[in-house]
Amino acid sequence: MTDHKAILSAFLDRVWNQGEVEAVELYIADQYTIFHDPGDPWHGQTLTRSGFADRLVKSRGPFPDQTFSVQTMLEKDHQVAANWTWKATQKGDIPGFPASGKIITMSGFTLYSFEKERLCGHWQVCDRLGVFQQLQAR
Amino acid sequence: MTDHKAILSAFLDRVWNQGEVEAVELYIADQYTIFHDPGDPWHGQTLTRSGFADRLVKSRGPFPDQTFSVQTMLEKDHQVAANWTWKATQKGDIPGFPASGKIITMSGFTLYSFEKERLCGHWQVCDRLGVFQQLQAR
Repeated sequence: MTDHKAILSAFLDRVWNQGEVEAVELYIADQYTIFHDPGDPWHGQTLTRSGFADRLVKSRGPFPDQTFSVQTMLEKDHQVAANWTWKATQKGDIPGFPASGKIITMSGFTLYSFEKERLCGHWQVCDRLGVFQQLQAR
Repeated sequence: MTDHKAILSAFLDRVWNQGEVEAVELYIADQYTIFHDPGDPWHGQTLTRSGFADRLVKSRGPFPDQTFSVQTMLEKDHQVAANWTWKATQKGDIPGFPASGKIITMSGFTLYSFEKERLCGHWQVCDRLGVFQQLQAR
């Protein structure tokens, strides 16, 4: 039986925390659909593996030391829900906010979908209002 | 065995959608902790049942026709994760935004905790940035 939780933990660590672009092919299916992720530039899109790698590089760019810390995982069939906190230093520019060196925190909750042993999509909400408030603060 | 999902569905419908204040005692434990809910005025607080009823009345005030629609529920032990969309007409004032008659939509993801057959807390993220963008739009 596929251990979805262990795969998800390894994916978050290697791909999102460490930024291993070459690990995308291990964890991402041929197509990956961002069913729901309001505020994410790829919201609603279905990406190829190379499209996913592009999203990874662009998303991590301004926040190269980012770390996702998962709180709880709940599994059902081919899906895993995970709530998490995120912490990163803003080392690069984002539209409207030049590199600040600020330490930014965020929380979010994601429902990941699996196709066999690879991830094929997610439905996610993040606290983007909290991020804007931190970026705007003096 | 307690059917947590059925209880949660009934709670969301009667308490949050219909606004039945008298149903709070059926669904809420002696203490209810809002472990995490960034942007919510009660974030981090532990409420009594009457404190919860007060939060319900104040939260629903500007949005009396609000409806939560759950997408997926995942259960583990005494917890249920539920992602949802919300829709409401802004019929009352909120700070900075007088009653507009606008139909506002929001999405969110909540991890509910149970104590026997009653709810005793939640950890939640909502798309509050999306709500602000809708309130600010002309």
